[in-house]
Amino acid sequence: MKSYGYAAPSGDQPLAPFSFERRDPLATDVAIDILYCGVCHSDLHTARAEWGGTLYPCCPGHEIVGRVSAVGGQVTRFREGDLVGVGCMVDSCRTCPSCVAGEEQYCTGTGMVGTYNGPDKVLGGHTFGGYSKHIVVDQDFVLSIGHDASQLAAVAPLLCAGITTYSPLRHWKVGPGQKVGVVGLGGLGHMGVKLAAAMGAEVWVFTTSPGKAEDAARLGATGVVLSKDKADMKAHMGTFDFILNTVAASINLDPYVSALKRDGTMVLVGVPAEPHPSPSVGNLIFGRRSIAGSLIGGIAETQEMLDFCRDHNIVSDVEIIPIDQIEAAYERMIKGDVKYRFSIDMASLADPAA
Amino acid sequence: MKSYGYAAPSGDQPLAPFSFERRDPLATDVAIDILYCGVCHSDLHTARAEWGGTLYPCCPGHEIVGRVSAVGGQVTRFREGDLVGVGCMVDSCRTCPSCVAGEEQYCTGTGMVGTYNGPDKVLGGHTFGGYSKHIVVDQDFVLSIGHDASQLAAVAPLLCAGITTYSPLRHWKVGPGQKVGVVGLGGLGHMGVKLAAAMGAEVWVFTTSPGKAEDAARLGATGVVLSKDKADMKAHMGTFDFILNTVAASINLDPYVSALKRDGTMVLVGVPAEPHPSPSVGNLIFGRRSIAGSLIGGIAETQEMLDFCRDHNIVSDVEIIPIDQIEAAYERMIKGDVKYRFSIDMASLADPAA
Repeated sequence: MKSYGYAAPSGDQPLAPFSFERRDPLATDVAIDILYCGVCHSDLHTARAEWGGTLYPCCPGHEIVGRVSAVGGQVTRFREGDLVGVGCMVDSCRTCPSCVAGEEQYCTGTGMVGTYNGPDKVLGGHTFGGYSKHIVVDQDFVLSIGHDASQLAAVAPLLCAGITTYSPLRHWKVGPGQKVGVVGLGGLGHMGVKLAAAMGAEVWVFTTSPGKAEDAARLGATGVVLSKDKADMKAHMGTFDFILNTVAASINLDPYVSALKRDGTMVLVGVPAEPHPSPSVGNLIFGRRSIAGSLIGGIAETQEMLDFCRDHNIVSDVEIIPIDQIEAAYERMIKGDVKYRFSIDMASLADPAA
Repeated sequence: MKSYGYAAPSGDQPLAPFSFERRDPLATDVAIDILYCGVCHSDLHTARAEWGGTLYPCCPGHEIVGRVSAVGGQVTRFREGDLVGVGCMVDSCRTCPSCVAGEEQYCTGTGMVGTYNGPDKVLGGHTFGGYSKHIVVDQDFVLSIGHDASQLAAVAPLLCAGITTYSPLRHWKVGPGQKVGVVGLGGLGHMGVKLAAAMGAEVWVFTTSPGKAEDAARLGATGVVLSKDKADMKAHMGTFDFILNTVAASINLDPYVSALKRDGTMVLVGVPAEPHPSPSVGNLIFGRRSIAGSLIGGIAETQEMLDFCRDHNIVSDVEIIPIDQIEAAYERMIKGDVKYRFSIDMASLADPAA
């Protein structure tokens, strides 16, 4: 089937209108008319070849919500008209220990198939993401959206920013009675604050800017810790059960490790382009502390997250943009000038062939 | 009471005979005639002021076994003639959350009081360690030794090398069905192999030297992984549940992190003088792996370890030395020329005042 979207022709050219083919739905496929797609930093890094390995044309987008337009003959879980989501993956090997455990994001067989820039197993070539009008995905990688249809623009970022923060909070058992820190108040961080607070934890935002206190409180935080204020950092030293570090730039991790209690864990969800300064081993040893990493979440856990967010009335804070503003949005993202996620209204996307 | 031992007068002078005072036993104290004291790398680093903060004269030693010579009036757990041990701590605040949890090594009140180079709360000044004839320790920091008296020289290193490796193996629940790696086959590493094998894990030793395979097998390992052989490292990639890294030199951690399975943890128990190269964040994220630290173990856990070792007939491999060979032993330790721990026979220690 014919489709269209926005794609980067190369790493040094802006995204532009783009026509391409989607596969006709196979027996287990769900065809989706995309309504909104969140804008993730990964989109920008991939489109501009900042991580290497980008295949062109590159049509990014993995925070997708839409409505089912057709289903294959063996699809049991979805029907035409359903509101659904697609996140960072559209397939995996399904047989390795990680896949069997429902942790498809850590697939050690073929590796997970990214929603964009992954190997397209049906058509060949590479996958095209959610900056487009339609997508066709195996039902096992499609999520049910239970939020009200009026919230869809703000639901879209849950598919990456939401699950990337929800999964480590759940895996490390964040809950009532715990003090949780969030480093970086951006697309990921603002979701981390909302989710950790909804899980019952006392949440503090580490920030360089006192001006973020009001926003942090509005999102559910008890307060902010001024990370450049040594006295403030010292006052919180050794008090955190868990810290979710969403910063993707190279930063000194030691002050955050020092903020952890004995047996505390700091989880990193961003890969810096330049390595962090090497963290102090003494800080880990003299407190049995851990530094860990976490990658999005499995499909079952993504559904759990969406249901949790529906039940707690949680969505992302978004600024809705038409797709022709995507390059300007990227520039603003780089400056941190968005509260807290851009969401593309796909009604703004015109068929270049029309 | 008068005592004597070996101490470094300063950071650039060798250890030499030394006379000093021990306190007379208080009501809850146990006075111990020291029989053997293991030689730990920390002794050398502290005596030579390599970590800073050394108080002189410095009498090291925190792998102490001996026989009770007297007890205070309120001592209930020990009596004269008992075989006992003293490890890295002789006191702590006893009221902070870590102490209450039996994790005195992480005391956040006063901090734990080191067996040497710590603040002596009774006599003032600083504590003197086990390179000496006698020691007086509160009963709460004295361990019962259940091994046969003929094994005492080889039991002494359990008090630091043993507990430092036992505690993380237990904390991270190492056991049957798991594949465990040990990096560094020295005083700590050889204990890690014995203990992890006794806990039922399949143990592999990471080594640069194929010559260590025989020794690794004798200690209980299934095999060795040649850490400089890329093909061998690749064959083991993503297969380890847990890695105990005992190396205190600066090394590239990434190949070991890559050797971990999803959700695997590498625990560091050595602080390098120069930082390790910064570990790859991607390696952590794309496997939800952790790098953690661990410090010795609590008193209750140290007793548990000693009982475990008694029940499994585990001791350290030692080379017994007279105390006047301590400087030569340090030089050999630096070269890794010991299998696997020196243990000082305190019968070799003469009273300089006699």
